[in-house]
Amino acid sequence: MSDIKNKEITSRDVDFAKWYTDVVKAAKLATYSKTKGCIIFEPNGYAIWEKMQSILDSKFKETNHQNVYLPLLMPEELLKKESDLIQGFAPEVAWVTQGGDKQLDERLAIRPTSETLFSDYYASTINSYRDLPKLYNQWCSVLRWEKETRPFLRSREFLWQEGHTIHETEKEAMEETLRILNIYNDFFHEYLAIPSIIGKKTEKEKFAGAISTYTVESLMYNGIALQSATSHYFGQKFSLAYGIKFLGRNNTYEYAYQTSWGASSRMIGALIMVHSDDYGLVLPPKIAPVQVIIIPIKDTIEVMEKAKYYQNILNQHNIKTIIDNTDKSAGYKFSQAEVNGIPIRIEIGPRDLANHNITLVRRDTREKENVNINDIDIVDKINNLLEDIQTSLYNKAKIRRDEMTYEARSLEELKNIMENHPGFVKAMWCGNPLCEEKIKEIKGTKSRCIPFTSEKISDHCICCGKKAEHEVIWAMQY
Amino acid sequence: MSDIKNKEITSRDVDFAKWYTDVVKAAKLATYSKTKGCIIFEPNGYAIWEKMQSILDSKFKETNHQNVYLPLLMPEELLKKESDLIQGFAPEVAWVTQGGDKQLDERLAIRPTSETLFSDYYASTINSYRDLPKLYNQWCSVLRWEKETRPFLRSREFLWQEGHTIHETEKEAMEETLRILNIYNDFFHEYLAIPSIIGKKTEKEKFAGAISTYTVESLMYNGIALQSATSHYFGQKFSLAYGIKFLGRNNTYEYAYQTSWGASSRMIGALIMVHSDDYGLVLPPKIAPVQVIIIPIKDTIEVMEKAKYYQNILNQHNIKTIIDNTDKSAGYKFSQAEVNGIPIRIEIGPRDLANHNITLVRRDTREKENVNINDIDIVDKINNLLEDIQTSLYNKAKIRRDEMTYEARSLEELKNIMENHPGFVKAMWCGNPLCEEKIKEIKGTKSRCIPFTSEKISDHCICCGKKAEHEVIWAMQY
Repeated sequence: MSDIKNKEITSRDVDFAKWYTDVVKAAKLATYSKTKGCIIFEPNGYAIWEKMQSILDSKFKETNHQNVYLPLLMPEELLKKESDLIQGFAPEVAWVTQGGDKQLDERLAIRPTSETLFSDYYASTINSYRDLPKLYNQWCSVLRWEKETRPFLRSREFLWQEGHTIHETEKEAMEETLRILNIYNDFFHEYLAIPSIIGKKTEKEKFAGAISTYTVESLMYNGIALQSATSHYFGQKFSLAYGIKFLGRNNTYEYAYQTSWGASSRMIGALIMVHSDDYGLVLPPKIAPVQVIIIPIKDTIEVMEKAKYYQNILNQHNIKTIIDNTDKSAGYKFSQAEVNGIPIRIEIGPRDLANHNITLVRRDTREKENVNINDIDIVDKINNLLEDIQTSLYNKAKIRRDEMTYEARSLEELKNIMENHPGFVKAMWCGNPLCEEKIKEIKGTKSRCIPFTSEKISDHCICCGKKAEHEVIWAMQY
Repeated sequence: MSDIKNKEITSRDVDFAKWYTDVVKAAKLATYSKTKGCIIFEPNGYAIWEKMQSILDSKFKETNHQNVYLPLLMPEELLKKESDLIQGFAPEVAWVTQGGDKQLDERLAIRPTSETLFSDYYASTINSYRDLPKLYNQWCSVLRWEKETRPFLRSREFLWQEGHTIHETEKEAMEETLRILNIYNDFFHEYLAIPSIIGKKTEKEKFAGAISTYTVESLMYNGIALQSATSHYFGQKFSLAYGIKFLGRNNTYEYAYQTSWGASSRMIGALIMVHSDDYGLVLPPKIAPVQVIIIPIKDTIEVMEKAKYYQNILNQHNIKTIIDNTDKSAGYKFSQAEVNGIPIRIEIGPRDLANHNITLVRRDTREKENVNINDIDIVDKINNLLEDIQTSLYNKAKIRRDEMTYEARSLEELKNIMENHPGFVKAMWCGNPLCEEKIKEIKGTKSRCIPFTSEKISDHCICCGKKAEHEVIWAMQY
């Protein structure tokens, strides 16, 4: 019966957008709220976010970052100090104009990002090179007044972490920018099983206020790219705007160098759109809040004893395991376990158990395996299976990404690819923003990044034909 | 040199309010921001909050609660549905009226608390008794437009968790309300080493919208009370206002029963005002982000090797240990370790080490002890010392609380106590709100709670002289 596709879920190949929201809903990851453009993170969705937080947070702490919390609101005056930033964010800011029953003298912005508050904080607390570096991060929500929203991918409020660091030298700040980019990229590869690529944004696509922006880009199942995490190098731009001076080693005042970097709850959207299928969510074991679900076919004493024994021993080995002992039918439980993306389910029935057999089902391939419990060490068996699922998901996503990565040697070729089978398209670019602008006229196409590991596809810019400076990866984007 | 009091810190007995803010500043827990009434949680302050989060969060999860995240903003219409709640919070709400460059049709409230959003969410997702209970919690910040603010104790934005649960029966909801109250109370006793008391709020002091409010009350060093955490029983009030109906076991529609409960970053204020002293912060070991700091007197090879050895072995035993290897003087390091409230410091000097000696200094009593490292197992020694500090802090706080707990048999007596040596004052009350109102005329005095373990001090209300219904604990409050 578990071969019958979940009726709540539109087929991925029929209507990808509908499939996506169906999976979000069926797996109870999020639901809409009465607040327009804002979602409710339901327990299943928030648990994935907590897991992401806990992994990234330890990686930040291992590299000497500290968590802080800065205010949600900031005075307009403060936000305006760095002109590029305010120009970039002005159309997206939500403004508080009333406190209690009083009109405020100066309106307050709800943070769309916190460079301004961090810069002001640094200006008032950093005096000497001995106070540097400061490697701060905060976990919070931010607000951007988006017009079109989609659960996890784009909503007015979203959850994220924003790191803001400040350094004595350009070199240190640049090292930090790339250190974090690599932490993000490793996280995508190792935990999310997503073969993301990294590179530098073009001038046009960089963050408002940054000298340079580095990005982690992932390709979704339908060939659309998702900007998945970014790391910005600011040089002295904010230091100059906010007056962050320190007494240097040579006893003169210098302006400090800054970075910022962020990864958000949109990563949950990436997980869905890379791995999941028509049966619901598929989660890589390393990011799944629950790795194993045990489903007793009947709740006889023997079955329940065995279920509890497995639950205990697996949990003791840090494999998060639950038992579904609700009064629903076994078929319903199977299908729920699939919709929820739990990597492995163990089915224990009284007849099989009498023959020392249980059934293991892996979520990614939906393959069933009957095993004789006398022949296996359950912890080893499950650990191997989890590892195999993690690796398979990565490999499958990588094969798909590679299949959907193309090369274009002319504008026409680029256009054809985008119209017929979108994906990552590698093409050479002269570096002129006018050419980038022209390429963007191909509906939805944007430069994703200048990849770090770049190839020389040809000598000429696909737009103007002049000498090419960079390979650029182009794609349509969320 | 560490006997010289930190010059940045006003003496606690000279000016308690100034002492408090001096400790906040000197221990780098928080600082003011450009956003009026909002603080910046600096790394030392945020690390305490993270420790509180992690302990409470596991206690919530052990009792089957799940985390979710609901929007920061809510439409005015939604907030207005429960009239008591909006009346209670209206003067404190911050309103968003502009999104980007557009005036909004309906203003949005920044959450002062989230009963309304949870109720609306429950109304749209609960259909049958099989959907109950829902035991949800969220970690977030809330905003209340306070006029007077004080770091951690009262600020416009603060960090907290808010639990919102919904149940099939009155009995279950009431059990939940008290279950959580006990989790809070245990947390105060076991981790924060604060001998809090629990009880029920009077009608006048209960939460806007609640049927009954239960509270954890703590007494600060200066005899002023702090409402430290609360748990509310709502009965069907919100269910009726928001239409949260479910099909019951007997096949008729019923209204569900709700609770909510919260504990906030003001607990950091309680830690300071109960345990700390003129040398700075004092932290109970179980809540201290760092338990041990090792200070090398000179960084000789032998000293540094020993320091690193201790750091490793202590960290391996889950005793968070750091080494201060900055280039500051040993005296400065000692005083910083004290200001920051690290429970134990280990001083290692080359001469002492040659004689197999190190010095242990406990922060609470500032007692020094020279130990021969051949005579001790360092892990055992430190563990015992940490346990001793935890217990001593609790006992000291309890003795002080008991000394500052009084009984009053008349209004005059209550007034005298409040004016001369404030504290918890036990006094009998008839239950009439008019008497409570009259007692509140004694400057700053409010009923804290009707304690669960109540005594019968006399037969008569101290205000009207009529038959007493309850013992009430009265105090001045933050």
